[in-house]
Amino acid sequence: MKWYFVALLLTVLTSSQGILTTLSQSNGKYKYDYATVPFLAEVFKLIVSSVFLWRECRNSPPPKMTTDWKTVRLFPIPSVIYLIHNNVQFATLTYVDTSTYQIMGNLKIVTTGILFRLFLKKKLSNLQWMAIMLLAVGTTTSQVKGCGEASCNSLFSAPIQGYMLGILSACLSALAGVYTEFLMKKNHDSLYWQNVQLYTFGAIFNMAWLVFDDFRADFERGPWWQRLFNGYSITTWMVVLNLGSSGLLVSWIMKYADNIVKVYSTSMAMLLTMVLSVFLFSFKPTLQLFLGIIICMMSLHMYFAPPSMLVGLPPTVRSDPESLVAIPVDHKTDS
Amino acid sequence: MKWYFVALLLTVLTSSQGILTTLSQSNGKYKYDYATVPFLAEVFKLIVSSVFLWRECRNSPPPKMTTDWKTVRLFPIPSVIYLIHNNVQFATLTYVDTSTYQIMGNLKIVTTGILFRLFLKKKLSNLQWMAIMLLAVGTTTSQVKGCGEASCNSLFSAPIQGYMLGILSACLSALAGVYTEFLMKKNHDSLYWQNVQLYTFGAIFNMAWLVFDDFRADFERGPWWQRLFNGYSITTWMVVLNLGSSGLLVSWIMKYADNIVKVYSTSMAMLLTMVLSVFLFSFKPTLQLFLGIIICMMSLHMYFAPPSMLVGLPPTVRSDPESLVAIPVDHKTDS
Repeated sequence: MKWYFVALLLTVLTSSQGILTTLSQSNGKYKYDYATVPFLAEVFKLIVSSVFLWRECRNSPPPKMTTDWKTVRLFPIPSVIYLIHNNVQFATLTYVDTSTYQIMGNLKIVTTGILFRLFLKKKLSNLQWMAIMLLAVGTTTSQVKGCGEASCNSLFSAPIQGYMLGILSACLSALAGVYTEFLMKKNHDSLYWQNVQLYTFGAIFNMAWLVFDDFRADFERGPWWQRLFNGYSITTWMVVLNLGSSGLLVSWIMKYADNIVKVYSTSMAMLLTMVLSVFLFSFKPTLQLFLGIIICMMSLHMYFAPPSMLVGLPPTVRSDPESLVAIPVDHKTDS
Repeated sequence: MKWYFVALLLTVLTSSQGILTTLSQSNGKYKYDYATVPFLAEVFKLIVSSVFLWRECRNSPPPKMTTDWKTVRLFPIPSVIYLIHNNVQFATLTYVDTSTYQIMGNLKIVTTGILFRLFLKKKLSNLQWMAIMLLAVGTTTSQVKGCGEASCNSLFSAPIQGYMLGILSACLSALAGVYTEFLMKKNHDSLYWQNVQLYTFGAIFNMAWLVFDDFRADFERGPWWQRLFNGYSITTWMVVLNLGSSGLLVSWIMKYADNIVKVYSTSMAMLLTMVLSVFLFSFKPTLQLFLGIIICMMSLHMYFAPPSMLVGLPPTVRSDPESLVAIPVDHKTDS
């Protein structure tokens, strides 16, 4: 399977996630407990991965599975990072409003690039760094508040703690992604076996979060398992399946492609959601959305197009020794 | 003289033009007839160029000067194009408001690139085309109306004639630039001799425009020469000198650099003016100005940086035959 096909599918699913979540609300409110959605999505991913792993086990050769504690103990770490990230997110939102938070969220594109370079030792060209920065600038441009919209002055006027926490949040989000990529590429284990470990811990941590929520609310709404499917409609189930499926695709991309591919997929999905909202929810199209789309498309081309196409070099020299000819470069020689 | 030094100077002068023009107003109105400013600037450029030409003529060898009618008759053409452009601009403004006109003005960056390629036969790499588009996107981004500003809905709601005229205006503006470059590079005539021809016709056409204005106003304000210096302050004179000097620099750039350098200079000047306005006139800095600056800086780097720096190639192969070694590219050979 080609990575760009998976990336395109992830874009479509991530984009429908936004649309479906909006459709699952009635009068702008959730009739169900939204915290149950990620838990059920983890369970869905765990079931799907288990079924695939079981099928793989019946084939020969059997899938490669590392089961020693030294490797398994690394799999709860992404869940731990996401848990910390969620808490930092809550803290950030006490200092800044949601639209400033959304704008700051684009920072994670740049932090992912940096951690990708530092921890995974991947080299990026000058142009690829510019492409990553342009992607962040493009998504931010599309989110610039248009005229007549409320909460204008908030962006540059939040307390410094808000910005510091926003940066921390972007770093944690990038760290979770880069760490997952490291984990998936660490050995040649079966993707499904790695998924089973990842989602088992994911489901446990999500369940712990629901229990913690119950304790914090003093069990006013009863224990979480009693209201697990309360208010669920077909759309809610689609939200769960969609979230689960896109999680499986992210996992595939982390093993066979990389974090930058994922970042492009989800950024394009955000723009696609905004475009679809213009048609579905009669949102007003803005100039900044149009500009943001152009910027992100150019960034995509800059990052992934072969350098020879970009700078107009001749196609890569074939290693056929007879085709190697010394071409003088802007310089006359006597030979 | 290095072209980037001249380009930087042009940026500073063009930027001060905006600031000085604002400073020359009192209570947001001109106390002088603004139409006299370009005329006096043409006269200033003509005097400066004549003096330099006269000095050149006293040196040996004397400057190269083509004086046959076949060449001289080409020099009024830029003035004719600007005259048509001014009229199209007036027509456009009857259909669209000034902020939409300003946004559409960024189109001339792209049309300059296209005419530069078509008429001057200059080849641009894929990356340089993207850089030019990004420059246009960046300047447009910086001009996106922030929240709370008036005239929001105008951008997508002007009649179609407004957009057509806006495109025509961008084409004429680009044509004038590209034609001037063609004229200046056509032969190896002295720059000052070419300038003298250009500005003689420029002064004549500007004068004709002032006369035409008088006829249109039925000489209510008297003939133009009687109110030529009416209401002029020191700042007004600085506006004239500044406009004249930047015109001389543009002429130099057309002969020794090119239209794209000029487009970068003036676009950067626009951003610089906006930044200076934040300090001088307490304009509110916006997120879109910040984003626009980042985009334009990246565009500048993409256009002018050596390709090897951008895509991380080794420095250009030297044509020293002994340094040529066949490097197998991702491919094993038996040799």
